[in-house]
Parts: sequence; structure tokens; C-alpha cells
Amino acid sequence: MAFDIEDYLSVKKALVDRELEALLADGSKSPARLLESMRYSVLAGGKRLRPILALAAGEAVGADPEKVMPAACAIEMIHTYSLIHDDLPSMDDDALRRGVPTNHRVFGESTAILAGDALLTDAFGMLVAEGIRRGVSERVICEIVSDIAESAGSRGMIEGQAIDLALTGTKGVTLPEVERMHALKTGAMIRVSVTSGARIGGADEYQIQKLASYADAAGLAFQITDDILDIEGEGNLGKERGNDERRGKSTYPGLAGIDESKRIASELTRKAVGMLEGFDHRAGALRQIALYLGSRNH
Amino acid sequence: MAFDIEDYLSVKKALVDRELEALLADGSKSPARLLESMRYSVLAGGKRLRPILALAAGEAVGADPEKVMPAACAIEMIHTYSLIHDDLPSMDDDALRRGVPTNHRVFGESTAILAGDALLTDAFGMLVAEGIRRGVSERVICEIVSDIAESAGSRGMIEGQAIDLALTGTKGVTLPEVERMHALKTGAMIRVSVTSGARIGGADEYQIQKLASYADAAGLAFQITDDILDIEGEGNLGKERGNDERRGKSTYPGLAGIDESKRIASELTRKAVGMLEGFDHRAGALRQIALYLGSRNH
Repeated sequence: MAFDIEDYLSVKKALVDRELEALLADGSKSPARLLESMRYSVLAGGKRLRPILALAAGEAVGADPEKVMPAACAIEMIHTYSLIHDDLPSMDDDALRRGVPTNHRVFGESTAILAGDALLTDAFGMLVAEGIRRGVSERVICEIVSDIAESAGSRGMIEGQAIDLALTGTKGVTLPEVERMHALKTGAMIRVSVTSGARIGGADEYQIQKLASYADAAGLAFQITDDILDIEGEGNLGKERGNDERRGKSTYPGLAGIDESKRIASELTRKAVGMLEGFDHRAGALRQIALYLGSRNH
Repeated sequence: MAFDIEDYLSVKKALVDRELEALLADGSKSPARLLESMRYSVLAGGKRLRPILALAAGEAVGADPEKVMPAACAIEMIHTYSLIHDDLPSMDDDALRRGVPTNHRVFGESTAILAGDALLTDAFGMLVAEGIRRGVSERVICEIVSDIAESAGSRGMIEGQAIDLALTGTKGVTLPEVERMHALKTGAMIRVSVTSGARIGGADEYQIQKLASYADAAGLAFQITDDILDIEGEGNLGKERGNDERRGKSTYPGLAGIDESKRIASELTRKAVGMLEGFDHRAGALRQIALYLGSRNH
């Protein structure tokens, strides 16, 4: 039976959605508005790419998906907090995200800031408490908390966002600068999604290195394709087309041209798939995800 | 030789300051402006009450202070992030903090938000990496990460800040509402400072319970004294007097009167000290800190 990537993604997405819904269930202790604001953004949809990558990487080394889920969901909560804060008036000042009004447009700026702060904080607590409850070892939990904090912190995702703000509207930005910005802003969290799932599955350091390289290549291919879709896309992105250019964001296709960008994305996809050579058939989903990310049209 | 609390506090503060300075040293990898903004607020001073409480609680059960320090500094970093975000224009819109311009007034709003996010994220990563390096067990580190996230998250400090924003300017706020807001907004992090230090020292659950009650009583006494100083204080607070009233903040002395508030603060101090009865002379610093917090005049 042929592997159907769209089917795989939608099955895993449903599992992740169900977990996130349960994790953010109303315990009716939090102030209603704060929890509502957190739920609004987390449950607004999204592809769940990061948690699915964590699950697929776990699968590649035989992890129990139940044990991977807390890390997968923690990473998605951290990703969501970053979107809420990036959309704020003092940052990108976005009105729409995933086809619906951004968090601060619905709940106001102060609640949006607090909802982001809370998702980031709760993600670490949940990862530890739920990980231990499901039998992940304390050693692996410590490794993952440390990796995620590094990837999300002042030398990872937040550094990427700071660079993005600094480059926006700047003339003469170079391709290496854009690449470094992407590697930090999106790449670091995509890599830690993959390595976290693998660590929970007991991967050795050689496997972790290969999977990290897989994630770096697939993550950049994903970002380049995203930028191309912003120019060529058929709507359906939940945001307007041509956003990047209007805002003075330097992009891959803007600097290298669309054809060259497509060529680089294909090459990165091939590289990502090549990193999986030493793995057995259980890495099939990771392989298909890389091919999908480098060639998707929505 | 008599125990000199002012001397104790200043010696410990210097140790904490030195650690924070080293932890936030310029590795010249972070974007200069982001790191500068983080350093500005963390190194702007402050009493370092939370890290000192962690050290003193560790002392009470014989902890190695070197092992307590990462948790102590992580809590101070999280405290600092909360001050940066609380001061933002959409929150309390403060111009001064600890006698100097607030972070967003110096670095702009987007950098202030990112500096807060980065301090929160880096705190968790540093706590784990540095804790392990200094020989704290992975089990204790997991307990502390979980406790701190719970105390700082959507059911702790952030819930307290959300309640504070909701109560500000509201008429007919009751004393129990103000007390609950304080318990969440400041109390939870003060409690986790004490329990983290104690856990690292190997305290048993009975000792943790007693120390948590100590922290709850001493923390509220501290907050009430703070509110009284806002009315009666002699300047030197690093902010203007009468701030709370001008902003429509309900306070303990505002609702219960100054004399009754002083009486309650004394009673809480007695209660805090009483919780230390089963501990030996090594709890002397905790005892003196409680007495100091309940009666300080600056």
C-alpha cells in the first residue's frame, strides 16, 4: 500500500489537536479571559508541522508516540506564543493569522502579551510533568528542556525575530543574512522538534546529528517554499499574498529569483532525504514529509 | 557575634549580582541590542529578594550554595522579565523602575517584549544546564522546573498580573480579592524561591510544607509593607510615592487602613517565624529576613 502523506499529516494533526485541546481544557481556575485567549491561538489550527516532525522522528527510531506527545505539544505551544508576540502592534502589527483575526485584535494587547508569556511558561511545566507521568526519563527530559530553551531563547528563535525586525525595511540585505535569520527564527525550533522526538526514542548521538541535518535542510526548504507561495500562491494561506514585499521583508525569491529559489529548495530536499540513508523503513514518514515540504503548493 | 541582617543581605546580593553578570556576559553571539536590553534590566539592581530567599532556604537545610545559585538566578531572571512586561505601555505604562527609565523607554517596545521573552526562556535553559553542571540531580531539576513553571505560569504569576489588570480602576474591590491577587502575582514566586533552595538541599516534604507556609506569610507581609511604603515612604523606592492610588490600584492599606495593615503585617511576620520552629540554627537567616521584610522602612 502506497504511503499517503496527506493522509499521514491529517491523522497526526488530529492526534495533536486532541492533545492540545485536553492540555488547555478549562480547569476553571485560570481567569477566563486569559485561558480563552491562549486557547484561541493554540486551537486556531495551523499545520502542526513541528509536533508532527517530533512524532515522525520518534517513529524513525521506534519511540512510543504517547511519550513524544508532551514534547511535541510543548513545542507547538512555544511556536504559538511566538506567533502571538510577532503579530503585536510593536512587532509586525498583523491583523490576520491563519485566516482569523490575530490574538491582540480580539483580546487586546495586554492579554495577548500575557497569553504568549503563559503559553511559553506552561509549555516547560507541562513538558516536565506530563513527560514524567508518561515514563520519559528525567535525564531525557532535562536534555529536551535544555535543547528547547536554547532553540527558543536569546540565541535561537528570539535572536531570529530580533534580526528579522532589524532587517525589515533595510536595503541591501544579503542572502546569507536572510538564511541566518531563517535558521534562527524558524530553523532552530524545527530542528529541536526532530531531535526531541528522536531523543525520547533513545536515538544515539550519531542518529541525532543526522536528524538535525535533515531538519536544517528540510526546514530551510520549507521556508523558501513559504516565501515562494507568498508571491505565487493561490490564496488559501490564511493571509494575503505579497505580504512580505509590502512590508519590506527580504526573502529568498526576492534576492535569488523564483527559479533559483525553487532549484535551491529541491536541492535542500534531496539533502534532507539523503540524511535518512542510515535509517530503516520507519523513517519513511520523515522522508515523505521532506518531499512534501519542498514541493507543496499550499 | 550578633547576626547583622543588612550585612547578610548585602553580601548575598553581591554574590547574586556577580553570578547574574557572568550568566549574561556578552558571548557576542546574541544580537547586541537584545542582550544589552536583557542586561540593562537584570543588572539594574533590585534587592535580589527571591534569590536571597532561595540561598537562605538552602542554608536552612544545609545545601551547597553553589548548587542553589542556578535556580536562584533563574528565578531572578523570570522576576525581571515580569517587571519588563508589566511596565509596557499596554500594561502599567511605567516610565521608571528602580530609579531608572523602564526597558521599553530605553530600547523600544518590541525589544523590551523580546528581552522579557528571552529572559524567561533562557532562565529555564540555564537552570537545567548549569544545575546539572554543578551536580544537582536530574530528579530535583525536574521538580524545580515544574514548580517554577507552575508558579510563573497561567495559574501563578501571570494569572496574578491578569487579575491585577482587571481590578485596576475597578470600584468595590474586596480585601480577599487583593490578597488573592498578591498571592498569585508575587506570592507564588516567593514561595518557589524558598522551596527550590530547600529541595536542592534535600529537604523532606514536611520541611518543604513548613517553608512554603513561611514564604506565604513572609511574602504577604512584604507586599503589605510595600503598599504602606508607597503611601508613607521617604522616597528612595526608585519610583514615585502614591503611585498605587493615582493608578486606581486597590491596596491593603487603602482597604483596611494603615494601622490595621501594620497589625496584619506583624502578625504575618510572627506566623512566618513560627513556621521555622522545627529547624535548627541554620534557619537563622530565614528568621531574620522575615523580621526584616515585615518591618522595613525602605
